[in-house]
Amino acid sequence: MMALELNLQNKELTSDEIAQLAEMRKVCARRILLSTSLASSGHPGGSLSTLDMLLVTYGCIKHNPADSQWQGRDRVVMSIGHVSPGVYSVLAENGYFSEADFLTGFRRAGSGFPGHVERIVPGVEWDTGNLGQGLSTAVGMAQAFKMKGSDQKVICYMGDGEQQKGQIAEAMRYANKYNLNNLIVIVDRNHIQICGSTEDVMDIDVAGLFEVSGWNVLKLDDGHDTNKFFQTFRKAYLGKVAKTDKPTMIEAQTMMAKGVSFMENLCKYHGSPLNQDQLAAAFKELGLENDFDKWAELRKAPVATNTKLKNIVRYPAISAGEPINYDGKTDCRSAYGNALHSLAVANNVGGVMKIAGISCDLEGSVKMGDFHKHSPGAYFEAGIQEHHAASMGAAISREEVACFFSTFGVFAVSEVYNQNRISDINETNFKVVATHCGLDVGEDGPTHQGIDYIGLMRNYFRFNVYLPADPNQTDRVIRTAAVNPGNVFVGMGRSKMAMILADDGTPFFGGNYQFTPGQGDWVRRGKAGTIITYGAVTPNVMEAWQKLKDEGVEVGVLVMASVVPVDKAAIVEAVKTGPVLTVEDHHVDTGLGAIVATIIADNGLTATFKRLGVTRYGASGKPADLYAAQNLDGAGIVKTFKEML
Amino acid sequence: MMALELNLQNKELTSDEIAQLAEMRKVCARRILLSTSLASSGHPGGSLSTLDMLLVTYGCIKHNPADSQWQGRDRVVMSIGHVSPGVYSVLAENGYFSEADFLTGFRRAGSGFPGHVERIVPGVEWDTGNLGQGLSTAVGMAQAFKMKGSDQKVICYMGDGEQQKGQIAEAMRYANKYNLNNLIVIVDRNHIQICGSTEDVMDIDVAGLFEVSGWNVLKLDDGHDTNKFFQTFRKAYLGKVAKTDKPTMIEAQTMMAKGVSFMENLCKYHGSPLNQDQLAAAFKELGLENDFDKWAELRKAPVATNTKLKNIVRYPAISAGEPINYDGKTDCRSAYGNALHSLAVANNVGGVMKIAGISCDLEGSVKMGDFHKHSPGAYFEAGIQEHHAASMGAAISREEVACFFSTFGVFAVSEVYNQNRISDINETNFKVVATHCGLDVGEDGPTHQGIDYIGLMRNYFRFNVYLPADPNQTDRVIRTAAVNPGNVFVGMGRSKMAMILADDGTPFFGGNYQFTPGQGDWVRRGKAGTIITYGAVTPNVMEAWQKLKDEGVEVGVLVMASVVPVDKAAIVEAVKTGPVLTVEDHHVDTGLGAIVATIIADNGLTATFKRLGVTRYGASGKPADLYAAQNLDGAGIVKTFKEML
Repeated sequence: MMALELNLQNKELTSDEIAQLAEMRKVCARRILLSTSLASSGHPGGSLSTLDMLLVTYGCIKHNPADSQWQGRDRVVMSIGHVSPGVYSVLAENGYFSEADFLTGFRRAGSGFPGHVERIVPGVEWDTGNLGQGLSTAVGMAQAFKMKGSDQKVICYMGDGEQQKGQIAEAMRYANKYNLNNLIVIVDRNHIQICGSTEDVMDIDVAGLFEVSGWNVLKLDDGHDTNKFFQTFRKAYLGKVAKTDKPTMIEAQTMMAKGVSFMENLCKYHGSPLNQDQLAAAFKELGLENDFDKWAELRKAPVATNTKLKNIVRYPAISAGEPINYDGKTDCRSAYGNALHSLAVANNVGGVMKIAGISCDLEGSVKMGDFHKHSPGAYFEAGIQEHHAASMGAAISREEVACFFSTFGVFAVSEVYNQNRISDINETNFKVVATHCGLDVGEDGPTHQGIDYIGLMRNYFRFNVYLPADPNQTDRVIRTAAVNPGNVFVGMGRSKMAMILADDGTPFFGGNYQFTPGQGDWVRRGKAGTIITYGAVTPNVMEAWQKLKDEGVEVGVLVMASVVPVDKAAIVEAVKTGPVLTVEDHHVDTGLGAIVATIIADNGLTATFKRLGVTRYGASGKPADLYAAQNLDGAGIVKTFKEML
Repeated sequence: MMALELNLQNKELTSDEIAQLAEMRKVCARRILLSTSLASSGHPGGSLSTLDMLLVTYGCIKHNPADSQWQGRDRVVMSIGHVSPGVYSVLAENGYFSEADFLTGFRRAGSGFPGHVERIVPGVEWDTGNLGQGLSTAVGMAQAFKMKGSDQKVICYMGDGEQQKGQIAEAMRYANKYNLNNLIVIVDRNHIQICGSTEDVMDIDVAGLFEVSGWNVLKLDDGHDTNKFFQTFRKAYLGKVAKTDKPTMIEAQTMMAKGVSFMENLCKYHGSPLNQDQLAAAFKELGLENDFDKWAELRKAPVATNTKLKNIVRYPAISAGEPINYDGKTDCRSAYGNALHSLAVANNVGGVMKIAGISCDLEGSVKMGDFHKHSPGAYFEAGIQEHHAASMGAAISREEVACFFSTFGVFAVSEVYNQNRISDINETNFKVVATHCGLDVGEDGPTHQGIDYIGLMRNYFRFNVYLPADPNQTDRVIRTAAVNPGNVFVGMGRSKMAMILADDGTPFFGGNYQFTPGQGDWVRRGKAGTIITYGAVTPNVMEAWQKLKDEGVEVGVLVMASVVPVDKAAIVEAVKTGPVLTVEDHHVDTGLGAIVATIIADNGLTATFKRLGVTRYGASGKPADLYAAQNLDGAGIVKTFKEML
C-alpha cells in the first residue's frame, strides 16, 4: 500500500486527507498494539503518542519507499528509538516493507525488526536508543547538507523526558550558532516518562530552553489533531517562522498511549505491552478484529531471513596527497595538522568538501588552524561540547565526508565513549584524532592524562586504532585514515620529539615508508628478545635499545602503531626471539600488553613476558619525570628487560 | 600569615578591609605570575580573573586553615580546576601552607602542587580539571548536607566557557528540584575561552539558562570590585534572595588576566605563562620586586616531599544485615533491591542516613522501590541525567555515606565512563550497581546491551568489580560492597534465573557462603580442565558441565565473581587441570578472557586456552537466542570445550 502525499502548498488538510489519516492511524495503532503484545515486550505508549505526527510527517517530506537510500531524501532521526512499533507501522503504511515481515519479526533475534529503530529496517536512518544523542545526529546531517549546499531537511523526533539529557543543550547551541534552519525538531510532549510525570521526575521548561538557545519555537496544543500538526509542520518545513535563519522546534502536546482509553496517560505503557486479554479489550474498543492468535502462530515459524540492507557505505574518493617528511624535532600533532591541511588542499577543491574537521575550543592545541584557514566551510568549532561534537561528527561522516574530530585524549575517548559506541554501531566513517594522550600530557595532571585509549577503543567492533611513534609515522597514519572508509582512532602524545631512526641513521618512518593497518614495524631486529611499543615512549625504548646494545644485548624493537587490527604474526615471531617486554604510555592492564598477552595465551605459547605501563595515576610534572617514576624511561626499560634475561 | 575574616553581619566592607584585600590581591597576583612562569606552564589568566572573588569568599565562609579537614567547614569546589595558581595563592594567603612550598613545587612531579587543583593540596576539596563536572560535585555535597540536616554551604566556582558543557544543565535542574538553597555558584564571566570570546566560540545565555532552570540569579557588573562582590555574595550566603528555597548563581563580570595591562582580555593567557622578560615587565607595572631568579634557583633542588594529606576516608560503620537466601527462580536485580532495602533497615535508623540511593528514571527496573519507600530522605531520583547523577553520587559518597547508583549497564558504565574516572581519581566510596548488562538485556537490542563493563572499569585504579552469578551471590556481593569503603562496580543481567547449585543440590551461594573479594569459587572440581565464568551465563556453563559430565568429561567450574581484584592463584590452579575456557556475556577481547590470558602470559604458563564471549553486536531478541547465536548457550560451550580436548 502507498500512503497519501500531502501538498505543502495547501495551508491545511482537506477533509478527505483528514479521514484518510484517521484510517491510517487505526491501521497503525493495531500494528503497534499487536506487535508489542506478540513480542511480549516493547513500547506501545510513546508509539501511540507520536503516531499522528509521524503519519503527517511522512506525508510531507521528500522520501522514496521504493529506494530507501535515495540520495535526495529528507532525513528523519528518531531520537526516541524505542517508539519502533510506531515507526515500523508508519513505514509499512508507506510501503517500505510488508506488515507481515514486521509483525512476524518484531523483536526476534535475527529478524530485521529490532526493539529500537535500526538501519536494518528500510527507511530508518540511524540506530538510536540511548536518549539524548539523536538531536546531535540530526544536527550532523543538517550540517552536512549545509556544507554541500543541499536544501534537504532533517526532522528529529524527541521525547520530553529525554529533554533532561544535557547533551541536548549542547546540540541546541550548536544548531543555533551554525544557523541550521534546515532542521526541525518535534518534541512529543506527553508529560510522561517511566517513573511518572516529567514534572515530578525532573521538571524542565522545554520551550524555554530552546528559546533561550535561539531557536524558533512553535507550540501546538494537540499533536493528535492531524490538521493542526500539518499547519504547524508546514510552517517549519517551508521556513515560515520568525527567525528564518534558525532551526525550529515544535512542542506538540500529546497523550501517552493515545486512543486506547484504559492505557492513556499511564506511565506503565511506556515500556509494557498489553497482555492478551487487554489486547482483546483494546481491539474491541477500536473496532478491530482480534487476529492475535493467527500472528502468534505465524511467529512460531523460524524467523524470516534478516532483511538487513546491503550496507551502502557512501565514502568519497580521497587522494592521500604527498607524504611529508620530518627530520628535526617536532610533535606528532603538528604532523597531524600538516597532513590534514595537505589532505584539504588535495581534496577540498572546486567547492566540494570531502574532508571536514571538528574541534572543541582547542583548534590551536590540536593543530587544526591551517585546515581551518584552507577550508573554513568544512571546519566546525563546537565549543566545549564534546558529547555533541562526537555524535554530530559521526553523523556528518555518513554523508560522503571524511570527518576528523580532534581534541585531547580524555575528551575524545574517555568523555565521549558512549557517543562513539553508538557511532560504531552505526558503521560511520568517523576519524577521531586525539592529540594529548598519556603521561606525555605532563603538567596538566591525571585528570587530563588519558591512559585508557586502547582499553576503551577495543570495546568497539568497528574502530581501527592507530598510535604512531613519531611525526613521520603520524603523517602516513593520518593519510591512511583519510583514504579508507570506516571508523579510525588515532592517538598521540603532546611533546616534541626527535624522529625514530633506522639502523642507518635515516628516519625510519620517512621517505617511502608505508603504513599498513595490521602490520607492525621491526625498527630493530635482535636475537635476545623483543621490546614491543608504540607512541610517545618509543624514543625511550630506542634509548634502552642502545644501552642494551652497548652492554651486548641485542634486542629487537617492534613498533606496533596499528593496535587494532594487530599484527599477530609479528607477536608470535617476537616470542621466538626470547623475552618479550611491552612498553606503553597507557594503563598497564588494558593496553598493548594485554593484547600481546592474549595472543600469547590464545596460541598456547610459552613466553618470558613482562608488561611495562602506567600502574597508577600520573602526577603533574614534566613527562620525563612522570615516565621515570613509572619505569617508562630508558633506564627503567633497561632495568626491567634485564630482569627477564 | 592569616587572612582577614569578613563579618557577614556587615552589609558592606570597611575601607580597611577593602585596602587589605587590595594588598592581598597584589601578593597573590605576584604568586600567580611567578608560579606559572617558574613552571613554564599553567593558567595565569583565569586565576587573575577569579582572584578578587576568591579572596572575599575565603573571608566569608566557615573554614579552618589549621585543620583543613574540619568537619564543619563549608566547601569550595573549583569546577575550573585550571585556576590552581589562584587557588593555591589564596590558600597560602589563608595560611594553609607556605608560599615557598607552592612556588618551589608548582607543577613538578612528586610535589604537592599540581597543575589542576587536587586534594593533595590542603584546602582543596576535589580534584577537578575536566570542565562541566564540578557543579554536579558541588550539588552532591549540598545534597549530602541537606540529607544530614547540616546548614553547611557549598560554593562552586565555574568558568563561562565551561557553561557550554551539557552536564551543567542536568546539575542545574537537579539542584532546583531538590531545593538546594545551600549551594552558591559563582560564574567567572570573563567572556574569554581558549579559542576566542565565548560569544564567538559558542554563544550562551548563562543567566538565562540558570533562570529557566529555577535558580536565583544575581548579576554583578564587576567581579573585581571586592566590596560589590561582598555585598552580592553575602546575600547569597545568608539566603537574602528572591526564592529562598532555591540555589543561587552569581554571574560576575570579570576580566581575563585582570591587573596586568598587556595580558588583559587576551585568550592566550588562559593557558600560557609569561616569559621572563614579560614577567619583569608585569612586576614593574605592579610595583613588585622581581625575584624570579631566586625561585628558579630554589626549584633546582629536588622536589620537596609530597605533602599529600593522609587520605582521611570518612566512611560510616555499616551493618551487613542478615543475608537473604533464594531458592526458586528470580532475578539478580530483585536480590539487589532486597539487599539494599535490608541494608537500609539495618543502617538508616534514628534519622541518620548511612545508605543513599540514586537512580535515573528507572527505579522499578533497578528494584530500588523498597529502598525508596523505607528511606525517602536518602533516595534521589535524578531523571534521565546520568552524567550528573554519577558525578553527584560520588560526591555524596565522600560525606560518610555509602551511596548506591543504579541504572542499566550502558548508562552506569558506558555513558558515564569519564565521570566515574574523575570519581576514581577522587578516591570516593561510590557503589555503582548496573542491573542490565550484556546480551541478557535481550530485546532492547545492541544500543542497550552493555558488553564492555569489565573492559571499561579495569581502566580505573580504585574500582573493585564484582559480577555475581545468581541472586544468592548478588545478596552477598551487595552487602560486601556496602560494608567496605571504596569504589565498587556490581554488574548483573536482567533475566530471572534458577540458583546455581552445589554438587549436593543445595544453592551454592546460599546459606553460609561468604563472598570474598579476590577469591574465586570452585562450584565444581574437575580433572579434565576448567571453565571460568561469571554472571548471567553461569547457568549455561552449568548446563554444559552436566552435558560434558554425561559424556564422561569431568570439567571444573570456577566462578569468578570478583574480577577486580581477581583470584590469580585459582587461575594458575585451573591451568593445571587441563584446557581452560572462559565464558562471559561480554566483549570477548576485553573481559575475563583477557584477564585470564594476562595471568597465563605473565606467569609464563603454557595452556590450552580459549575465550568465549561476545564477538559482534547482539541483535534484538530473547537472551537465549542471542546466546545461541554467539556460542554462549550450553551447546555452544560444550562444542567449544570439546574442540580443546
